[in-house]
Amino acid sequence: MARNRSTRPRRIAHGNSVVVIGLGRFGRSLALELVDEDTEVLGIDQDPEIVQSLSGSLTHVVRADSTKEDVLRQLSVHEFDRAVVGIGNNIEASILTTSLLLSFGLREVWAKAVSEPHGRILSQLGVQHVVYPEHDMGRRVAHLVRGRMLDYIEFEDDFALVKTNPPADVVGRTLAESGIRSRYGLTVVAVKRPGEGFTYATPDTVVQPEDTIIVAGHTRQTERFSELR
Amino acid sequence: MARNRSTRPRRIAHGNSVVVIGLGRFGRSLALELVDEDTEVLGIDQDPEIVQSLSGSLTHVVRADSTKEDVLRQLSVHEFDRAVVGIGNNIEASILTTSLLLSFGLREVWAKAVSEPHGRILSQLGVQHVVYPEHDMGRRVAHLVRGRMLDYIEFEDDFALVKTNPPADVVGRTLAESGIRSRYGLTVVAVKRPGEGFTYATPDTVVQPEDTIIVAGHTRQTERFSELR
Amino acid sequence: MARNRSTRPRRIAHGNSVVVIGLGRFGRSLALELVDEDTEVLGIDQDPEIVQSLSGSLTHVVRADSTKEDVLRQLSVHEFDRAVVGIGNNIEASILTTSLLLSFGLREVWAKAVSEPHGRILSQLGVQHVVYPEHDMGRRVAHLVRGRMLDYIEFEDDFALVKTNPPADVVGRTLAESGIRSRYGLTVVAVKRPGEGFTYATPDTVVQPEDTIIVAGHTRQTERFSELR
Amino acid sequence: MARNRSTRPRRIAHGNSVVVIGLGRFGRSLALELVDEDTEVLGIDQDPEIVQSLSGSLTHVVRADSTKEDVLRQLSVHEFDRAVVGIGNNIEASILTTSLLLSFGLREVWAKAVSEPHGRILSQLGVQHVVYPEHDMGRRVAHLVRGRMLDYIEFEDDFALVKTNPPADVVGRTLAESGIRSRYGLTVVAVKRPGEGFTYATPDTVVQPEDTIIVAGHTRQTERFSELR
Amino acid sequence: MARNRSTRPRRIAHGNSVVVIGLGRFGRSLALELVDEDTEVLGIDQDPEIVQSLSGSLTHVVRADSTKEDVLRQLSVHEFDRAVVGIGNNIEASILTTSLLLSFGLREVWAKAVSEPHGRILSQLGVQHVVYPEHDMGRRVAHLVRGRMLDYIEFEDDFALVKTNPPADVVGRTLAESGIRSRYGLTVVAVKRPGEGFTYATPDTVVQPEDTIIVAGHTRQTERFSELR
Amino acid sequence: MARNRSTRPRRIAHGNSVVVIGLGRFGRSLALELVDEDTEVLGIDQDPEIVQSLSGSLTHVVRADSTKEDVLRQLSVHEFDRAVVGIGNNIEASILTTSLLLSFGLREVWAKAVSEPHGRILSQLGVQHVVYPEHDMGRRVAHLVRGRMLDYIEFEDDFALVKTNPPADVVGRTLAESGIRSRYGLTVVAVKRPGEGFTYATPDTVVQPEDTIIVAGHTRQTERFSELR
Amino acid sequence: MARNRSTRPRRIAHGNSVVVIGLGRFGRSLALELVDEDTEVLGIDQDPEIVQSLSGSLTHVVRADSTKEDVLRQLSVHEFDRAVVGIGNNIEASILTTSLLLSFGLREVWAKAVSEPHGRILSQLGVQHVVYPEHDMGRRVAHLVRGRMLDYIEFEDDFALVKTNPPADVVGRTLAESGIRSRYGLTVVAVKRPGEGFTYATPDTVVQPEDTIIVAGHTRQTERFSELR
Amino acid sequence: MARNRSTRPRRIAHGNSVVVIGLGRFGRSLALELVDEDTEVLGIDQDPEIVQSLSGSLTHVVRADSTKEDVLRQLSVHEFDRAVVGIGNNIEASILTTSLLLSFGLREVWAKAVSEPHGRILSQLGVQHVVYPEHDMGRRVAHLVRGRMLDYIEFEDDFALVKTNPPADVVGRTLAESGIRSRYGLTVVAVKRPGEGFTYATPDTVVQPEDTIIVAGHTRQTERFSELR
Repeated sequence: MARNRSTRPRRIAHGNSVVVIGLGRFGRSLALELVDEDTEVLGIDQDPEIVQSLSGSLTHVVRADSTKEDVLRQLSVHEFDRAVVGIGNNIEASILTTSLLLSFGLREVWAKAVSEPHGRILSQLGVQHVVYPEHDMGRRVAHLVRGRMLDYIEFEDDFALVKTNPPADVVGRTLAESGIRSRYGLTVVAVKRPGEGFTYATPDTVVQPEDTIIVAGHTRQTERFSELR
Repeated sequence: MARNRSTRPRRIAHGNSVVVIGLGRFGRSLALELVDEDTEVLGIDQDPEIVQSLSGSLTHVVRADSTKEDVLRQLSVHEFDRAVVGIGNNIEASILTTSLLLSFGLREVWAKAVSEPHGRILSQLGVQHVVYPEHDMGRRVAHLVRGRMLDYIEFEDDFALVKTNPPADVVGRTLAESGIRSRYGLTVVAVKRPGEGFTYATPDTVVQPEDTIIVAGHTRQTERFSELR
Repeated sequence: MARNRSTRPRRIAHGNSVVVIGLGRFGRSLALELVDEDTEVLGIDQDPEIVQSLSGSLTHVVRADSTKEDVLRQLSVHEFDRAVVGIGNNIEASILTTSLLLSFGLREVWAKAVSEPHGRILSQLGVQHVVYPEHDMGRRVAHLVRGRMLDYIEFEDDFALVKTNPPADVVGRTLAESGIRSRYGLTVVAVKRPGEGFTYATPDTVVQPEDTIIVAGHTRQTERFSELR
Repeated sequence: MARNRSTRPRRIAHGNSVVVIGLGRFGRSLALELVDEDTEVLGIDQDPEIVQSLSGSLTHVVRADSTKEDVLRQLSVHEFDRAVVGIGNNIEASILTTSLLLSFGLREVWAKAVSEPHGRILSQLGVQHVVYPEHDMGRRVAHLVRGRMLDYIEFEDDFALVKTNPPADVVGRTLAESGIRSRYGLTVVAVKRPGEGFTYATPDTVVQPEDTIIVAGHTRQTERFSELR
Repeated sequence: MARNRSTRPRRIAHGNSVVVIGLGRFGRSLALELVDEDTEVLGIDQDPEIVQSLSGSLTHVVRADSTKEDVLRQLSVHEFDRAVVGIGNNIEASILTTSLLLSFGLREVWAKAVSEPHGRILSQLGVQHVVYPEHDMGRRVAHLVRGRMLDYIEFEDDFALVKTNPPADVVGRTLAESGIRSRYGLTVVAVKRPGEGFTYATPDTVVQPEDTIIVAGHTRQTERFSELR
Repeated sequence: MARNRSTRPRRIAHGNSVVVIGLGRFGRSLALELVDEDTEVLGIDQDPEIVQSLSGSLTHVVRADSTKEDVLRQLSVHEFDRAVVGIGNNIEASILTTSLLLSFGLREVWAKAVSEPHGRILSQLGVQHVVYPEHDMGRRVAHLVRGRMLDYIEFEDDFALVKTNPPADVVGRTLAESGIRSRYGLTVVAVKRPGEGFTYATPDTVVQPEDTIIVAGHTRQTERFSELR
Repeated sequence: MARNRSTRPRRIAHGNSVVVIGLGRFGRSLALELVDEDTEVLGIDQDPEIVQSLSGSLTHVVRADSTKEDVLRQLSVHEFDRAVVGIGNNIEASILTTSLLLSFGLREVWAKAVSEPHGRILSQLGVQHVVYPEHDMGRRVAHLVRGRMLDYIEFEDDFALVKTNPPADVVGRTLAESGIRSRYGLTVVAVKRPGEGFTYATPDTVVQPEDTIIVAGHTRQTERFSELR
Repeated sequence: MARNRSTRPRRIAHGNSVVVIGLGRFGRSLALELVDEDTEVLGIDQDPEIVQSLSGSLTHVVRADSTKEDVLRQLSVHEFDRAVVGIGNNIEASILTTSLLLSFGLREVWAKAVSEPHGRILSQLGVQHVVYPEHDMGRRVAHLVRGRMLDYIEFEDDFALVKTNPPADVVGRTLAESGIRSRYGLTVVAVKRPGEGFTYATPDTVVQPEDTIIVAGHTRQTERFSELR
């Protein structure tokens, strides 16, 4: 166990810190990203190898059975404000753990679901944020498989952002001249020269053939635009 | 088996169609999204229940063992241009299947990886597009767990889009007046009134307290902006 | 499958009928008792042997996987008012099934719990009546093991009923004379002669040495009374 | 092991103490109830977690394999007068353990049965008291599921006690006036005002609409009475 | 199933016939030996291969689960007078089956035990004849391993029969002259010339060096005699 | 390990001692019987519980994997003259162990077979004495099940010994007078009065109705004799 | 089953044909090579997929359990002269099958061993030819791993053949001139020009730098020669 | 662990040493042969028994999980020039290990394949030398099973070497006289007298009837020659 129990609550249990239970692919990358942004993270997993491999990277990481109430209490999990349950390969453990977190009264509980029934149960238990990584990524990649877009993100309410190569009639003039908004109902958000980073697009930006652009707009319109050549 | 072998190649095996092997959460949502966009999809899975549940939704869906060369050839998989391997719970099956697709010489092969070694092997075999749903979603959710953002997407090259509530000093005046770009290095891409869809932001757009906005910019700057109140 | 699907809804789906899912010891005896009292019962279990053995005894009994929404809908389970989930050996199946029943909006859902966490999850999901057979029977038998009582039942609010042999100073005179209520704070409810059934006790009832009596009162007082000789 | 072997026989092996083997739901609640009533209990289970969790609650609790004769003898089980076998998930272990207890000549052996054949074998071996928690609780709950009764207990010989709300024509007058015994063949045993405990009913007791009453009588008559409104 | 149910009871269910349940090594050789002696045998086993291999050799042989009461009743097992339970690899099945046979009231029940606890349970259930093949054969072979005896059988009450080669001082004269009974306390029962069968020994029998003899007497004396050269 | 390696060879490895490998029912009773007759025994088994339970009863007993050549050599098994392989539940281990013993050149190897193919392989490997406990005991018990005989032993060459109650026409006169040998072709070997041991029968012995007698003769004749009343 | 039983014996059971049991990698390539050389082959395996995949390539191929005597006899295996047992993943099945073949008296039995004990048992049973593919190929590849030789074969009696590139002082003159035999104790057996096949070497053969040569000689000398540059 | 980590790199990590991962039959015999030829070998296996049994025979041998990158780096595997992956029973482990070796950039990687797909994946990953022991040995033994040859080796390009007994018309005269090359298109490479080693054949060599000869030539011609008598 990589943490010092007696000193942990003082050092980690304030409002900004997060408990991440289940440190597989999802929980691990989530926890590491949080630490990168200076958020304190208490990571919990059953697998000693996983715990060992993260022991230098998270604020605290312990091997523990998160389905036991006394175990979670000993780790002061009930004093946290936010928790993420990333357990995926064992639905029963996911539910038992989430049930305990909710009974503790944590302010924000996130949980990963691996199927629609799993997600429904988490919602019925009272989880505010249910995440479906496989499902969401499947939808996102579907847009890329067809070969025109370089990346694709859909927000709710029929609004998407697409990274793509510019079609011919957009190249070589300013965005204002190309009339993208009027003709395609889209906004060019950013432009990237080869070898450089993205910069914000303005009406004066002139798109070059090798550029990559990010375009925002309604889903169907971004689809159609990305198929222009 | 929900398909008619003798007629399938004529109807489906052209350049736009996609083979999706492994119809779990990822492959399923990917395949359904493709069909929604009028792409023909041949779905393949080992599990008869999964095949049954998708039999009315995909162009063709068959129960088959994708690790066998003769099985894939009988399904004319070698004549497709694009394939996605969504197998995740069985690394060996993922590798055997992907190896066959590459030996067929398909133009584009996408494959889901469940771990870093799995992804490395897929790349060494010759896969062009390796996808890590759990890992990528973990990173994305990390930004949301902390509580300020409503959604977060990161493109490569340190460029991100964030859905968030507007901070106080942005509210009640035009975007031009608020000087978001000059003060925070960000562009407001779109604005959403409660109960409406997103509309493109222009310099004249006035943000209201209950609005949701989408902001684009460098990762660290979007982070900072979302923490303003 | 022992039922005729097309005719079932007409014959069974009214307000008095009950769905019993999971026909192990608990569900089986519950379902049979309901049928004995002229309540229509639709029994559901995964095990073909169990279904076969009850096919003549319940109104309808089907082998089905109750964790699948479409399976339950095909059986019109969503049209019932009352359901009992007796699944015990598989907590995940118990939770998945109960979650579906609750999502259907059934008026009354009872569910058996095999442990405290199982019971807590059922309550968090929204189950009104959680039953703990092993736990309750353990408490009840504890009173019998010590050897004085013949049977023991505890209602809530510290009120119990005890079947026992009468102590010496109660025998041979009327209940009025023996002063049980004043001396022990108890009421003799019924008396049973050897070879006969119970009859209501009245102040004039004379208890014989071989009689069995049922005594009601506060828990601790019934305990003490049963230890008299 | 939570006990001190050398001192145990002196402290616990008298006639009032009980051995409880198998500390699952049934055995656990039974053992705790016995301790609450100041009975000394030696608890035995195979599972170290269960033993650990009860180590402060029972008089003695040990982890041991109760199917081995020498193990039981080392624990002086053969010197006890009473034993309860609560093992349920492993019929063979239940039978092996019970067989040993009987060969020791214990005066009273109770054993839980999980099925009818299990119960028959226990009886054939010579067990005096075979308990069926799931079966008995199933029957009891059946009466509650239908919605009128609040609780239901059936003694042998067709005699039951029911907790229920009073029907209209019993409310507002004394029990003597309402003629419950003559009209329904039942005795009102106790009455409970909202927010109070049960008190014994007398002929002068007046039942109020919000009261809860306990009624005793023949099974079928209690059923009918509980359906009155 | 190799039998004709409707005609079986008439043909087999009389007092001489035997049910043999469990047709492994023990039950199989027992059943075949019975058939050789013109006893009708109904053989029952779970394993279809075993049933198939004996289908021409026993009077009737069926594949059935002998732990189910209705299965045994359908086979009219309750009408037989004698049964042998040869199940050995599954103690629970042995006990369940034997319990049913005893509840049927069969006149004679034999059962094989694979261990001391197994045998004790069978006896406690009420089995009259418990057989321990491995244990008994182990004792018998112990006498042969030491190398002098050719075969050894021990009856109860310290009386054994030994097949052995004759020691030198017995050879070449009549049994009367050799004084075996007086000197060794033994009787020579039979003598076998090489290539012939056994013949009864008489006082006039002359034992030759190559003969094999059978000697009867108290255990220890047969042991000592067999060590003479 | 209950033995002292350095001193063992001096104390046990002479011609009279026996290695017994596999201490299940067969090997255990064989080994204990050998020790009773003052033969030194080295017992070997994989199971620590078995080894523990015999540690005070055999000359030496060790827990070891007998399928490894170096393990057996460390135990000096190759220096013994006689070995018994009692392994039965694991044919492969039986064969591997026996193969090693034969490669060591032990003078006498006995091995238990659990099936005909197992026995054939042991013989082909070169084992001199293959024992079939289940098969032999099955044949023996077959004679007892039919109810007349009290015990039955068959030697080779059609010669059997039977313990039985005497038929009526043998009772009350001397064996010479009863003419058993001439009428039934049998010899009465011994007679046992109730409560006494067996004594040798002589022509002058008078058999009483309650006596038990041992009769020797050809198999079929002993069968017929035992059916007389 | 790919064969016609009634006609098989006439067509295949003569002296030249071979039974190959176990059609994994070893048995499969062996069987196919035999068929290539016009030897009739009866292939037997447990796995229906393997049997299916070879059904057009071997003379006959059947799915059967080769550990059963009656199965082998039905396939007339006992009438063959030669058999190869290629079973490797199941030592017990290998031994059972081989034991049966030997009991049939086949003239030549080959068997693959996967370990030294496995090989010893096969030899003790009476197998004439025991083959160790993994072991032999390991030794052969060891010579190639070090990087100088192109191929290496060792016959018994310290005699090996090596395929290698010629060292500098052998190039450009006749073999007679280069004195390979006298200087290195080796014979050049064959020479291969790039793009051509091997031809026999004669004293007049002139080796070119790009040639590949096969050299024969004592093991150590071939090693040393292959390290020359 | 049999190695001294701190000193290992200095002693073993030069160009001549070889890492052998997977020490089953193949890897073990390969590693031992390398050591015999004075090549330093680092052996790695998961199985402690295998590691223990080789600890005195290889230069270094460690128990380690070769599928983990950090484990291999700690063993300095990435500093070796040559590696052999002999893992066969676990394709996934074989692929994971090989993938790591290739990512380290080792100069020469050999890997054993147990099937065609396994071999194809290894090649696609980038392995230069894929070895199929079972397949190659199967082909080799096929030539021996038919009974004429004593050994057979096939090089590529239709060139084979055969050990065989000489046919009659080659015996008793010099090889020059017998005209083997002209008549059969073959060269006699070596001759072996009974009890001696092989010596090189010359035109003057006279072959005796009991000699063994090694003949080289095209595959089909060696086959035909070996069938002469």
